[in-house]
Parts: sequence; structure tokens; C-alpha cells
Amino acid sequence: MHKKSHLEERLTACGSILTVADLTQKNMKLAAQERKLLNYASIFSNSNPVHLEIGCGKGGFVNKMATLHPDVNFLAVEKISNVMIEACESALLLGIKNVHFLICAAEVLPKYIPEHSVGRIYLNFSNPLPKLGYVKQRLTNPRFLEIYKNLLVPGGEIWQKTDDEAFFDYSLASYEEAGLKILSVCRDLEAHPFEGNVITEHERRFMDEGKKIFRAVVRV
Amino acid sequence: MHKKSHLEERLTACGSILTVADLTQKNMKLAAQERKLLNYASIFSNSNPVHLEIGCGKGGFVNKMATLHPDVNFLAVEKISNVMIEACESALLLGIKNVHFLICAAEVLPKYIPEHSVGRIYLNFSNPLPKLGYVKQRLTNPRFLEIYKNLLVPGGEIWQKTDDEAFFDYSLASYEEAGLKILSVCRDLEAHPFEGNVITEHERRFMDEGKKIFRAVVRV
Repeated sequence: MHKKSHLEERLTACGSILTVADLTQKNMKLAAQERKLLNYASIFSNSNPVHLEIGCGKGGFVNKMATLHPDVNFLAVEKISNVMIEACESALLLGIKNVHFLICAAEVLPKYIPEHSVGRIYLNFSNPLPKLGYVKQRLTNPRFLEIYKNLLVPGGEIWQKTDDEAFFDYSLASYEEAGLKILSVCRDLEAHPFEGNVITEHERRFMDEGKKIFRAVVRV
Repeated sequence: MHKKSHLEERLTACGSILTVADLTQKNMKLAAQERKLLNYASIFSNSNPVHLEIGCGKGGFVNKMATLHPDVNFLAVEKISNVMIEACESALLLGIKNVHFLICAAEVLPKYIPEHSVGRIYLNFSNPLPKLGYVKQRLTNPRFLEIYKNLLVPGGEIWQKTDDEAFFDYSLASYEEAGLKILSVCRDLEAHPFEGNVITEHERRFMDEGKKIFRAVVRV
């Protein structure tokens, strides 16, 4: 794959909008010892609210959202760098100013993101089974929800979409268990879209295949 | 109240868009013996889908919807005639062709509405306690849901809105009990509106008072 070659070089070229975490540190207990908090004021040059996408993939969602909502700063996290590079390059190409990318595992987010600094977290089509049967890796596992609760401002929200009903039901149960308030649930988003719904090509393909899209909004 | 005087006369003047049920027959077992089914083809002069609002009050919602959706026929039911008259007079004044009104108690709907002929039922801000403590009168009581299931086409939906959380939770439990599929739930509709949401003055007032609006969509 020629496009993926020279990855280091390409990541370096995106340096102005990209932070690369130390991926050797997967354990927050270790990582917390030396926090490297992002400085929003210097990254975004304004004090607009920050919304966070965890698992942004190639950036289809976050780059569209950033274009539609210039008064919001978007922080997009992805742990796989040769996927993330496409998100970064698209943002540079489109000249989007209100997005910043972070290559990082979800466990280590507290090292980079200040507490109670995020207005909204997006979880779009997260992997239902990151490792076969390894539920603990799901991004709506209770251990992650505790991290999210610390990242979110009071009244902050998590917006989740998935095409996997079992994962969705698991997530709803996790939210309940974590004491999050389930504000909105939809089990057929194509039939019942919400105002401002951004549909990526990925999502459109699922719908075209006849899959139902599930969505939840929960509040801390 | 001068405006409410001559009610009979005013109802008669709305004859072209109004059916008045025999309100002395509250018992469907009696009423079923002589059904007086509405003839949609003659009422609407087309074969468009029919959506039904139960408890339309002064018609703010149904008249707005009928204007926005000319390809849908709206049937609006209300049992209090001196409220309903305002809905009818508004529709005539606005020259709306795709709405028909029916003064009728919900119990007696099967007498007037053909089985499996309704694509969608709207329940907007239904009285949470029609008679003090008399839960059986709630429009989402299981006995009404059985009626609605017979009125709806396969895949037909009930769209409910309310500002009463306890009534909403009661309704969700009723839907579950009746084997209806809960497709969409929202506990703060002002914060999370859906596409095409029609907000009446009534509803806007609730929101301005800081009340949350609850919404559910369920499918047969």
C-alpha cells in the first residue's frame, strides 16, 4: 500500500494539528504520574467548547462536524495511526481550523485531556468486540465510562451511534450502572432522524445494507 | 363566553369536515353492533395514508401537520365538542383539505375507524390523570393500546409527547406490556429535537416554563 508508506513522514507533516501520545504507556496509573495536558487555548486560539470523538477513524464524521460547527472545537482521538493519518490529511486539505487530532488509547486520555473540559463525547460505530469476546475493551465498558465522567463538564453528554444491537443494549446497561442519565434512545435512526444528524458514508452504507442504526444520548 | 355560544350551529357549519359520534354510546360492545365506518375515499377524495391524532384539542398540531404534509390525510379525534369546534373552524378558515375531525371517545374509535387503516397515531400531551387517580382513563392504558393495535397498519407507529414524566414512564411500561416495540425515547426534546418536529404554542409554553418534553415512538 503505497499511500500508507512513509507514515512517520506524513504524521510529521500534520504536526500542527496532531498530538501523538506515548503509545508504550497503556496504563493510566503509570501515565498519570506525568500528565501532558493539551492546552486548548494554544491549540485552538479561542475558548470555544470542546467536543471529543473517541475512535474517529478516517475522520469523516469529525471533519464534517467541524465544518458545520465553526464555534465548537473538535478533538478527535484514534489509536491506529495509519487510519488517523487520513483524518489529519483531510483536515489540512480542507483547511479546517477547529479540529485537533490525538493518537492515543482511550485508557490514557486523562493524561492528555483536562478534567471536566469536554462538553460532549461522540462514540460512533465503536468496535463492538475489539478483541474477540473481550468485553472489557468495549468503549462503553464501565471502566471507560468512569474516565468519560471525569472528562465531561457538568451536564456534558455522550452521543453514541452503532449498528450492533447487542452492543447497544450492553452500552445502555453500562450507562445505567454508571449512574448516567439516558436522555434519548433510538432504535431506527434512518426512520427517525434527529435535527442536525450527520451521516457518514460508512453509516450510509450500513443503512443501504438494511441495517438499523441505534443511537443514545446520555448525560452526566 | 360568547364564542362558545350557538355551539350546535357552529358544529353544523363545519359539517363538511366533521363527523360527530353518538356520544351516548360509550361502550364499544354495544357500539360494535352497528359500525359506522368512515369512508376515507369519500372524505379525502384520495387514497393517501391516514394519520390519526387522538385528543387534538383546538387543533394546533393537526392543522399545522396537515399543512406541512399535503400527501397525508389527518384524522383528528377529540371528545370535548366545544374545544373541537375551534380546531374545525381553523381548518375551514385555512382551507385545509387533508384533515377530517371526529368528535368521539377513544373507546368508540373502532366503530368509526376501519381496522388496520391508520399509519400513525399521535398522542400529544394527553391528560395524565383524566379523572383523579383513574389510570384506566389514560390514553396509554393497555385497554386503549389493544384498540390502537387494531387500528394501525402493520408496521404502524404511535408517536407520543408529554410533559409528565410519571405518565411517560407509565406509558413506556404499557407499551412493553402490550408487546409494542419501543423505537425511540427522548427525555429532553428541547435539547434533542428530531427532524420535522412540530412544536405547538402549548408545547412551547411548557418549555418556556422549564418543563422537559418527553417523547416516544413505538411500532406494532
